[in-house]
Amino acid sequence: MTDPRLESLRSVLPGLQLECGPAELEHFGRDWTRRWTPAPLAIAFPRQAQDVVGIVQWARREGVVLVPSGGRTGLSGGAVAANGELVVSLERMNRILGFDPVDRTLQVQAGAVLQVVQEAARSHGLAYPVDFGSRGSCTIGGNIATNAGGIRVLRHGNTREWIAGLTVVTGRGELLELNRGLVKNSSGYDLRHLLVGSEGTLGIVVEATLKLAPSPPPTNVMLLALPAFEAVMEVFSVFRERLQLEAFEFFTDVALRHVVGHGASDPFDQVHPYYVVVEFAVADEAGEAAAMAAFERAMEAGLVVDGVVSQSDAQAAQIWQLREGITESLAPRRPYKNDVSVRVGAMPAFLAEIQGLLGEGYPDFEVVWFGHIGDGNLHINVLRPEGMAEQAFIGRCEQVTRLLSDVLARHGGSISAEHGIGLVKKPYLQGTRSVAEIEVMRGIRRVLDPDGIMNRGKVFPD
Amino acid sequence: MTDPRLESLRSVLPGLQLECGPAELEHFGRDWTRRWTPAPLAIAFPRQAQDVVGIVQWARREGVVLVPSGGRTGLSGGAVAANGELVVSLERMNRILGFDPVDRTLQVQAGAVLQVVQEAARSHGLAYPVDFGSRGSCTIGGNIATNAGGIRVLRHGNTREWIAGLTVVTGRGELLELNRGLVKNSSGYDLRHLLVGSEGTLGIVVEATLKLAPSPPPTNVMLLALPAFEAVMEVFSVFRERLQLEAFEFFTDVALRHVVGHGASDPFDQVHPYYVVVEFAVADEAGEAAAMAAFERAMEAGLVVDGVVSQSDAQAAQIWQLREGITESLAPRRPYKNDVSVRVGAMPAFLAEIQGLLGEGYPDFEVVWFGHIGDGNLHINVLRPEGMAEQAFIGRCEQVTRLLSDVLARHGGSISAEHGIGLVKKPYLQGTRSVAEIEVMRGIRRVLDPDGIMNRGKVFPD
Repeated sequence: MTDPRLESLRSVLPGLQLECGPAELEHFGRDWTRRWTPAPLAIAFPRQAQDVVGIVQWARREGVVLVPSGGRTGLSGGAVAANGELVVSLERMNRILGFDPVDRTLQVQAGAVLQVVQEAARSHGLAYPVDFGSRGSCTIGGNIATNAGGIRVLRHGNTREWIAGLTVVTGRGELLELNRGLVKNSSGYDLRHLLVGSEGTLGIVVEATLKLAPSPPPTNVMLLALPAFEAVMEVFSVFRERLQLEAFEFFTDVALRHVVGHGASDPFDQVHPYYVVVEFAVADEAGEAAAMAAFERAMEAGLVVDGVVSQSDAQAAQIWQLREGITESLAPRRPYKNDVSVRVGAMPAFLAEIQGLLGEGYPDFEVVWFGHIGDGNLHINVLRPEGMAEQAFIGRCEQVTRLLSDVLARHGGSISAEHGIGLVKKPYLQGTRSVAEIEVMRGIRRVLDPDGIMNRGKVFPD
Repeated sequence: MTDPRLESLRSVLPGLQLECGPAELEHFGRDWTRRWTPAPLAIAFPRQAQDVVGIVQWARREGVVLVPSGGRTGLSGGAVAANGELVVSLERMNRILGFDPVDRTLQVQAGAVLQVVQEAARSHGLAYPVDFGSRGSCTIGGNIATNAGGIRVLRHGNTREWIAGLTVVTGRGELLELNRGLVKNSSGYDLRHLLVGSEGTLGIVVEATLKLAPSPPPTNVMLLALPAFEAVMEVFSVFRERLQLEAFEFFTDVALRHVVGHGASDPFDQVHPYYVVVEFAVADEAGEAAAMAAFERAMEAGLVVDGVVSQSDAQAAQIWQLREGITESLAPRRPYKNDVSVRVGAMPAFLAEIQGLLGEGYPDFEVVWFGHIGDGNLHINVLRPEGMAEQAFIGRCEQVTRLLSDVLARHGGSISAEHGIGLVKKPYLQGTRSVAEIEVMRGIRRVLDPDGIMNRGKVFPD
């Protein structure tokens, strides 16, 4: 630790934990993308907001770029540090600070792990309803930085909807307390919402006040087997009309085979091309009857060919594992990930167009489709064939992504539904946001980060 | 119409309707505040987004300040034009453009009147659930510009929550289509949320894509008479625990007397100091029983001394009129309005402190308290004594507002819960937003409005 910049950081923050061993540099320099070679300067572990203020002020003086770091589960390279940046890990700022029973809010540090937050909410008889498969390691700060979505958006919205207040340190090195938990506050621009989804390019979230929801109602989970892709949106319509949907998730048999290969068990005797997981509230017997009616309606219409319904929490968890286990089952293959969205109503036309495109674009690759179809969000993971070099594989995938980006632009969609732009999607940002919008975003960035030290190189096209 | 600047506007937009008769100048130069002398240059009535683009580009060239104008029901002077501005009225851009049954969204022009939007949603079996007393004249564009709240925030949130997409013309004269109705879109900064609540200082909203909610459940409305101010928050707690609250509104007997004086009828034989309107869902008999249980619990605890419950829609409307009629009944007196908020949990301590403050500050004024207490939002209207000059009255009120602003700062509250800052509250913005926040807001304003033509003089302290 002889870098003079780190010496100067130590001198202004003598108590700050700094690591620069090779294992730490590698671990904190990369996220789940595994595409860039980690090469941070060092890792800082602040313990309080004022430490982060000191780090940003130091970074401005020294011209060091900062990369905020949460649970490192990002899928877009937003937390990659490959160019001598200082990684600011919020790992040591992971406490639940307080609960307000009247406002029904939870005050947490940004490094709090999602599952810990969910459990804290439950301990107060309430729920933090944002949820994803990575709940055991992702952090609230990272969720906020990408406006993370997940499997309950259909019912509860994205992370954004659950933020009553944010404490951030901007790239100017100033600590801002944004909205402070107020339900109603029409006093100038809502900087809280500007920070949500800004991927660390405007500031570092250090604390959040989270809204909590009432405890969820009892639910059942159904797994449906579908004969054709075209049936997915129709099944959604049949079920949404009759039930209070908590989730509606889709995946292909290719996805199911990977999860089963990873240890899950297939509840069906036969292979079907498409599957849907539906979770719905069952307040009473009428709720269960409505679910059966929806199922029968879908069967009669030929939209569904088989189905199972959970009879216990354990069965519900088994069904969910088939959907939630997909990402983990594919992870060793380091798939190329697309995370696209369109309006829900635009989905059928969009799907029709991209099926052809991807069939031609990836003729020799295994393609795994799944996603939050009820929110218009589709994940398309592409697997590298054995023996193909990674760079060649990524190059081929990026050619297809360019075409996909054009199709999205025509259908009014987004190149990133929930993963963020990071490094992975920044070449395609202009398909989703206009040149004028990007110019405004760059201008705003200069206001909050005048020296360009906040996660430089991410989000904005070079 | 011989002003050369207007001639140049005519030459670039020959079809644009422009008015500068004295009646129009007066009508469009002021809002419900009636405190400033209207003196706009002229009124423009664009018919399409491209007209607005042309107006902004002209305004940049000519250095003319623009004041966007909706239903003119503002309470903070945000739409006042008293300095030779061009008022841009969205009155002629008031159409419902489309409905998407899959996404459950309504596409509207910014000048659409709230009630028309609500009726359009109902005609599709859905609801636009944001609601206030001014629904018959306020417009969606104005609602968006102040992030308007109203009487259903407790259940449905503010206007912000219902905006799936916004089309705006920025102060740079560029047309931006923000978020385009997507449920999930993590592709850079969410400029949509930046525009919501920006009070016309960043751009002019020309279209919006509104989310719609399922039709509301059947509800009942209760009017409760309370013996003491301290009981209000306790009654809220009793009812919220037992019922699905749709609204929880509070007012004092002083307010009731004004509404009754305006033609409404008092349902109680006796005078009580405080009243609450509770609206709650009644899905079935269990719901009605829960409501009675809550009422009895509150009676037994001495929190409530009398009450009536609606037996019909007509009765429900009569009860609501007692709350919603307050603003209109006071309007002829041109009250000085405070519209403050704190966290709901901070309300008791805040109330205790301000009751003394306002008692001392307004010893000889009639003070009318009411508001959305379940959201932490209180309206405090002060009436000018007969015979006191308006300037002297406002001067006295502003001294009190300065003290109130200090108390709000201590309790983490806001000087504007839902009216916006406009002209009226800008001297107090620094009690709610830090100097650093205001500096960031000014910087953002310069990005979207580099020439300072968008509603200049509003929101930011001089």
